[in-house]
Amino acid sequence: MKIAQIQMPVLSDKMKSFDSIKRTIEKSVPKGVDLIALAEMFTTPYQVDQFPLYAEVEGGSIWQMCSNLATENHCYLSAGTVAEKDEAGNIYNTAYVFDRSGKQIAKHRKMHLFDIQIKGGQHFKESETLTAGNKITTFETEFGVMGLCICYDFRFPELGRLMALKGAKIILVPAAFNMSTGPDHWQLMFKSQALNNQVFAIGTAPARDASASYQSWAHSLVVDPWGRIVNQLGEKPNVLITEIDLDLVEEIREQLPLLKHRRSDVYKLEEIKN
Amino acid sequence: MKIAQIQMPVLSDKMKSFDSIKRTIEKSVPKGVDLIALAEMFTTPYQVDQFPLYAEVEGGSIWQMCSNLATENHCYLSAGTVAEKDEAGNIYNTAYVFDRSGKQIAKHRKMHLFDIQIKGGQHFKESETLTAGNKITTFETEFGVMGLCICYDFRFPELGRLMALKGAKIILVPAAFNMSTGPDHWQLMFKSQALNNQVFAIGTAPARDASASYQSWAHSLVVDPWGRIVNQLGEKPNVLITEIDLDLVEEIREQLPLLKHRRSDVYKLEEIKN
Repeated sequence: MKIAQIQMPVLSDKMKSFDSIKRTIEKSVPKGVDLIALAEMFTTPYQVDQFPLYAEVEGGSIWQMCSNLATENHCYLSAGTVAEKDEAGNIYNTAYVFDRSGKQIAKHRKMHLFDIQIKGGQHFKESETLTAGNKITTFETEFGVMGLCICYDFRFPELGRLMALKGAKIILVPAAFNMSTGPDHWQLMFKSQALNNQVFAIGTAPARDASASYQSWAHSLVVDPWGRIVNQLGEKPNVLITEIDLDLVEEIREQLPLLKHRRSDVYKLEEIKN
Repeated sequence: MKIAQIQMPVLSDKMKSFDSIKRTIEKSVPKGVDLIALAEMFTTPYQVDQFPLYAEVEGGSIWQMCSNLATENHCYLSAGTVAEKDEAGNIYNTAYVFDRSGKQIAKHRKMHLFDIQIKGGQHFKESETLTAGNKITTFETEFGVMGLCICYDFRFPELGRLMALKGAKIILVPAAFNMSTGPDHWQLMFKSQALNNQVFAIGTAPARDASASYQSWAHSLVVDPWGRIVNQLGEKPNVLITEIDLDLVEEIREQLPLLKHRRSDVYKLEEIKN
């Protein structure tokens, strides 16, 4: 399975952001890629006051262009995330996934909103303008089940575990860590979720923009089920092409049977259906 | 709070192993230490066929010497682990903790038995001779609540999380990773559990013995609630002295409120009382 992750800066004009991604794909993504992954808020400056201004309903212009992008490349598209507006006017941080025919096959609304206040570092409060999702997202593909969550969601071991228990072998994570948490926690989060749940974890972030109010740590990466970084970018705009061998999931689960060794007679972890 | 971790090789004679630890403490542990921590199976060669031969009942000779060690040093003692025999003849991998007066205040039986088979690497099957415990262990001290688990137990995010939800600010982990999993997973496990649960994680292992059938990765360490390694040994016999500031737990939980941000309306993690 061949994956292309697109790490580009976010521009103030969403159509220009999208165009730059489209051109990057045309130029740098080889034919025959199975999955293209975009970053969190890839067409929206990551500022709480901007989310409502950039928000679109499901099926809106960016959604439609993403669907077309999947069709044109005849591949799965993890379409990063966008600000989504529902009929009641709530705004969500939402990830869509399209199949090779451009059909939407998954949708995840960020369920852990990013409200942090690091002393001498990053402050951010998504909950000022965003509403949280309340569903765990996994979906079927020709490569098996995949899980989907967004950035801060992946900090929570419960979520990674439940996606794995629902069959996920790959977890897609559009994300945008910052210059405070990135250096300390970005790799650690991906490595630990990948190792603990014995899945491939695919994190795709915007490129760093030193002039942005929220600077993305970037460093898009692929981590294998042994917790090893298979491939990773730096902070600059770039494309990460990685071929992964999904047989490794079963192989490692056999050698080190973590999921089998869970003590479901001593602790119970369950999804609550909403 | 001042902690001393004792990383010594395990000898074939359990009394000699204990004596070497006692002498090391007399020689290298400064007065006024609040907690001494010993390693997994610190008096028992880590071989499944040896566990039954070294096993003692609770209150047996090693237990008694550990209780005395706590009294003599007037400190808490996380007495590593020993092979414990119950009345029915079952053998457990058991950790005891004693308070400053030598009274046993906690007991944990390893609940995830270590049965692995790494291709071209480590094979081990604890379940051949050991019985698994079925309780999650936390206990009160003058420094607040601590959690206690053993080596492979700590691989499971559910357990770390439940100990933190039960109030643990420090998690004690006598352990003995090996030369296959140690280099790849030892630090990662401690860092991720410490970060995700915003606790101090204290891992104490035997020194490496290149002639042993199971070679301990050693590398005893202390990780802080931000996931940083505060202090760590290599593979040689040594003592690790660390002063930790427990205020850091609350400080980090305030800046990055991971425990507060859990979505207990979307997933439920519960202990099952046995």
